[in-house]
Amino acid sequence: MLNLESVGMERGLLYETVVTTRNEDGTPNAAPMGVICKNENEVVLYLHQGSQTVMNVKREEKFLVNITKDPMVFVESTLGNPSQESFEHFDNGYYIKGTDAFLVVEVLRMRDVEREDQFGVSTTTVINAKVQEIVKKKDHVEPLNRAIYGVIEALVYLTRMEMVSGDMEKLYRHRMREISRIVNKVGGLEHKRAMKRISDAFSKYE
Amino acid sequence: MLNLESVGMERGLLYETVVTTRNEDGTPNAAPMGVICKNENEVVLYLHQGSQTVMNVKREEKFLVNITKDPMVFVESTLGNPSQESFEHFDNGYYIKGTDAFLVVEVLRMRDVEREDQFGVSTTTVINAKVQEIVKKKDHVEPLNRAIYGVIEALVYLTRMEMVSGDMEKLYRHRMREISRIVNKVGGLEHKRAMKRISDAFSKYE
Repeated sequence: MLNLESVGMERGLLYETVVTTRNEDGTPNAAPMGVICKNENEVVLYLHQGSQTVMNVKREEKFLVNITKDPMVFVESTLGNPSQESFEHFDNGYYIKGTDAFLVVEVLRMRDVEREDQFGVSTTTVINAKVQEIVKKKDHVEPLNRAIYGVIEALVYLTRMEMVSGDMEKLYRHRMREISRIVNKVGGLEHKRAMKRISDAFSKYE
Repeated sequence: MLNLESVGMERGLLYETVVTTRNEDGTPNAAPMGVICKNENEVVLYLHQGSQTVMNVKREEKFLVNITKDPMVFVESTLGNPSQESFEHFDNGYYIKGTDAFLVVEVLRMRDVEREDQFGVSTTTVINAKVQEIVKKKDHVEPLNRAIYGVIEALVYLTRMEMVSGDMEKLYRHRMREISRIVNKVGGLEHKRAMKRISDAFSKYE
């Protein structure tokens, strides 16, 4: 049975992954992407218009989601593209050598939406995709979710607020809002509950 | 054989844990603490003078290190102390109910050092402790290490630098230095290598 729980993914949480797609000329492409676990066999992605990944996904309607914690894979796929030798073939696509696991997914539906964030208005392609296969390269897989790190960082700032002033204090307040936003975007109920407690305690500094 | 690798701890990395100690009146105390894996059966902690934990460790010379990802445990042990029902007895000490694993450790040596950081000079107690027992409550345990999250966050800032200006740009630069400091403190060789690549790419904005 296909079930994203087998790679540690929980419904509603967003995980940091590396998506691998096939370029028109058959070469591989990799890019870091947030992947939301919608249910046991469906994921949702928000892709920025104009990226190689969105073009490839629109053409191929199929891609792979790599679950890895390798820091150099994230760096290389952000700053450029990992070397050809960093990929392995799988069916008609590619996964990243050394990945803990990967998902083979197929687009169910796609829509372009205008979104406004702190950097202005941009077009995002929202992709719902069905998991067709899960390949585990390690017995136990734990995907990257940022929520607990946000909670821990927020606690650091909270306990330091008595010690800072001026620009640092302003910076901590800004960072606290940013963390709260991230935890509420990527986390589960318990993360959000924890963040609420921290925000309540922090409110005396606002 | 006692080996910290059995709970996913690698030599030289710093993990976010919750340390549980016994108060003088026999009640339990919990506090979030960074724990460095020195080798397969020794850990190092840097404790702030004046905390309940440091007093308890100095008196008892024994404590437990809980490996957990429960956000509420981190919140409660930072903002106060978890309720008595959150603890379970173990030998003469306590661990946190629901923890993924815990280590029973005994102090090998302790020394007070003056340290200067961004908040001024303070006294820190450096503790080397020997692992006497490892108790796993889950088959697979993965301790919290912040390095990969730092790398991912740094990549976000790096790719956004073209889009920001003024105060935001200043903030990103500050945050980048902070992340670099954390990754180099808590991470392994690959994390540091990745961070170096990011810092090099970021240097054009400095």
